[in-house]
Amino acid sequence: MLQAHAIAGMSQALKVYDVDTLSPTELKAVLARPRIDFSSILGTVAPIVEEVRKGGDDAVKHFTENFDRVSLTSVCDRIEDLPEPSLPPEVTDAFDTAYANIKTFHEAQMTSPIEVETMPGVRCRRVSRPIGAVGLYVPGGTAVLPSSALMLSVPAKIAGCATIVLATPPRADGSITPEVLYCAKKAGVTHILKAGGAQAVAAMAWGTASCPKVDKIMGPGNQYVTAAKMLLQNSEAMIAIDMPAGPSEVLVIADAGANVAHVAADLLSQAEHGPDSQVVLVALPGVDLNALQRELEQQCETLPRSETTLKALTHSYVVKVSSLEEACKFSNMYAPEHLIVNVENAEELLPQLDNAGSIFMGRWTPESVGDYASGTNHVLPTYGYARMYSGVSLDTFQKKMTVQSLTFEGLQNLGPAVAKMAEIEGLDAHRRAVTLRLGID
Amino acid sequence: MLQAHAIAGMSQALKVYDVDTLSPTELKAVLARPRIDFSSILGTVAPIVEEVRKGGDDAVKHFTENFDRVSLTSVCDRIEDLPEPSLPPEVTDAFDTAYANIKTFHEAQMTSPIEVETMPGVRCRRVSRPIGAVGLYVPGGTAVLPSSALMLSVPAKIAGCATIVLATPPRADGSITPEVLYCAKKAGVTHILKAGGAQAVAAMAWGTASCPKVDKIMGPGNQYVTAAKMLLQNSEAMIAIDMPAGPSEVLVIADAGANVAHVAADLLSQAEHGPDSQVVLVALPGVDLNALQRELEQQCETLPRSETTLKALTHSYVVKVSSLEEACKFSNMYAPEHLIVNVENAEELLPQLDNAGSIFMGRWTPESVGDYASGTNHVLPTYGYARMYSGVSLDTFQKKMTVQSLTFEGLQNLGPAVAKMAEIEGLDAHRRAVTLRLGID
Repeated sequence: MLQAHAIAGMSQALKVYDVDTLSPTELKAVLARPRIDFSSILGTVAPIVEEVRKGGDDAVKHFTENFDRVSLTSVCDRIEDLPEPSLPPEVTDAFDTAYANIKTFHEAQMTSPIEVETMPGVRCRRVSRPIGAVGLYVPGGTAVLPSSALMLSVPAKIAGCATIVLATPPRADGSITPEVLYCAKKAGVTHILKAGGAQAVAAMAWGTASCPKVDKIMGPGNQYVTAAKMLLQNSEAMIAIDMPAGPSEVLVIADAGANVAHVAADLLSQAEHGPDSQVVLVALPGVDLNALQRELEQQCETLPRSETTLKALTHSYVVKVSSLEEACKFSNMYAPEHLIVNVENAEELLPQLDNAGSIFMGRWTPESVGDYASGTNHVLPTYGYARMYSGVSLDTFQKKMTVQSLTFEGLQNLGPAVAKMAEIEGLDAHRRAVTLRLGID
Repeated sequence: MLQAHAIAGMSQALKVYDVDTLSPTELKAVLARPRIDFSSILGTVAPIVEEVRKGGDDAVKHFTENFDRVSLTSVCDRIEDLPEPSLPPEVTDAFDTAYANIKTFHEAQMTSPIEVETMPGVRCRRVSRPIGAVGLYVPGGTAVLPSSALMLSVPAKIAGCATIVLATPPRADGSITPEVLYCAKKAGVTHILKAGGAQAVAAMAWGTASCPKVDKIMGPGNQYVTAAKMLLQNSEAMIAIDMPAGPSEVLVIADAGANVAHVAADLLSQAEHGPDSQVVLVALPGVDLNALQRELEQQCETLPRSETTLKALTHSYVVKVSSLEEACKFSNMYAPEHLIVNVENAEELLPQLDNAGSIFMGRWTPESVGDYASGTNHVLPTYGYARMYSGVSLDTFQKKMTVQSLTFEGLQNLGPAVAKMAEIEGLDAHRRAVTLRLGID
């Protein structure tokens, strides 16, 4: 059905669509993400979540032994009980730079209370409070992801959360990756849960003998982690989550002036995340797609994760557009997690961009700077959820309370409207709480 | 087990606990809300949601006929096609006052973009964008709730949402309550969906021929509405919701100086919402509980909804505390939707109050002012969710995007840390997106 055509003569060629020739149905198919069948994953995850509710630490040990082949002596440790990790200075320097920038950007998100007198004597405010206990999920497995530890624990600490549990799969010997531990200690995490997967999410949601029960769980994760979060947010565990998560994705808008080697590198840096990553290039007139294809192939050859990367490229594509306006329109419909705007005068496009997790502006802003150290958060809405979700921020770790304070005069001014509306809604006790105070009942 | 004792000699007496004598287990039982069995409700709601996905407007008509005994000719109308309702001026005046105050307080929540240079040449921003299409649920049934129409549509309009669908159950003749229509027109709603219950939520989530598909659904509702929202937020409909919802509740902190007639009126104004409403009084020394009981009984006698109110009082209670500090501690553990602080120098307690949806400060601030017209939003977290959720606000109708813009110098400054972290995480294409640009690969 879809009129995609490969770039001529290339073996691993990206599919190419011309946006002007797509029918509404074809456009919808191009915009759709690979479907995730959550019902079967939820079926796998539900018994794990239930076992951890009943069995606590023992159940977590059991699943960690079964799934990760790691035998734990303790499940959750207070961070002060874990030894300071030893790392080369060039490593800690890089983390320290990232830490400082993330801290600067998230501290800038602190807000003063809002205060307004809506009528004489009627004072309304909105104030922030930290969420008491939060659970941060930092994926592990084959990769080591200290960057996610920083992205989650730095804003949690700035918000003032009293209990900050960081969960991450242990290494084969049951210990925590030293890079993750370094970042956790630096940022102010209070507890380390040495587990991954649905069992880690469940332990934080229900609480165990060693792991504090948390109020909200945030952080990226595979489909089992996501399913556990989704299941638990609708359960009696009474937790909130940051957002649903899907595979990572990037959309690059490039014009004729974009260096195709840079464009290829940006596309590959997303593709290497996993075989289900999605990579989209929105190409303005003049982008040399043959040269791009050559760059992709050449750069891919020398990548350690080239197999993963090639798999991701099979369901990725190029969309040709004829104007910047059309590019923005397509990007807004796709709602990418990461949006790289590699065009001249990139800044001028910002007012037209509505739906994206994080935007990387101009020629010198590859996505990887935001993944690690520019200061913005890398936990972002994927899968089209950028239409209605924000990425993780200081707000993720706070809630806001409203406060109203009326003087007697304020109640005199406002009371009649309140009494009338209560009367309309048939709520007489509501009316009387006003009229009794005003002595007019 | 629990050592509650009724106030002597009263028939409908509130249970009274002394916080100092409660064991941790007893305390937990007192704090717990009446349990809602969502699994059985989800089982009822799931087929309705699925029918509406498949059958669209016809399915909505079918369920509206079955459940509400109303035969609809059209399901969803553009608001400009509905006639201006005719209402007495004292009614529209009350709505206009509420509208103005809600608008003032929610406009004050508009934020400027955050902008910070985290390193020389590394500029990070956070900007707001409206959510494109939102669905507002305004409950109907026996009561008429124009106040909820204002609470949801005013911030949606301020946020700049392009499509604002308001769903509310129709009257017997298939029309919309004129009070709700007046508020919807005034605030800038674009579509009216004449349906309630799970079928209305599903129609907005999936979209139908007449009803636009929305990105997020907000608003209070009964357990079927809540279950449909919970189900759909985990579904392929790809919607967000404002928050989970449970029965409405108030906690009043009162001292010896509080007028017991006012305290009783405040407790009753919450109790009259529904038989499952919960009402808690935290009483400091010197509160005359016998006088309070008499007031409750006398005031209740003349209430039109006295039967509902009495039912709610059966699972409500008084907790005696010996200090303001203890009162705040109990309130924070309970995390009430509404918190009335009826004590001398109430304002001094604010720094100690962490978990509440909305706070009503001092002697002259009954909860009903916030339900209608002070300016704060009345769609608030219940059931203990005030620990981690905020009430509806301007934020509910927006999402935030982060934006980073690096100059070449910025990339030179930041690049080495990014390249090192990418190396640690084994993501070579991430590293190369930086080093290629810097010409050091």
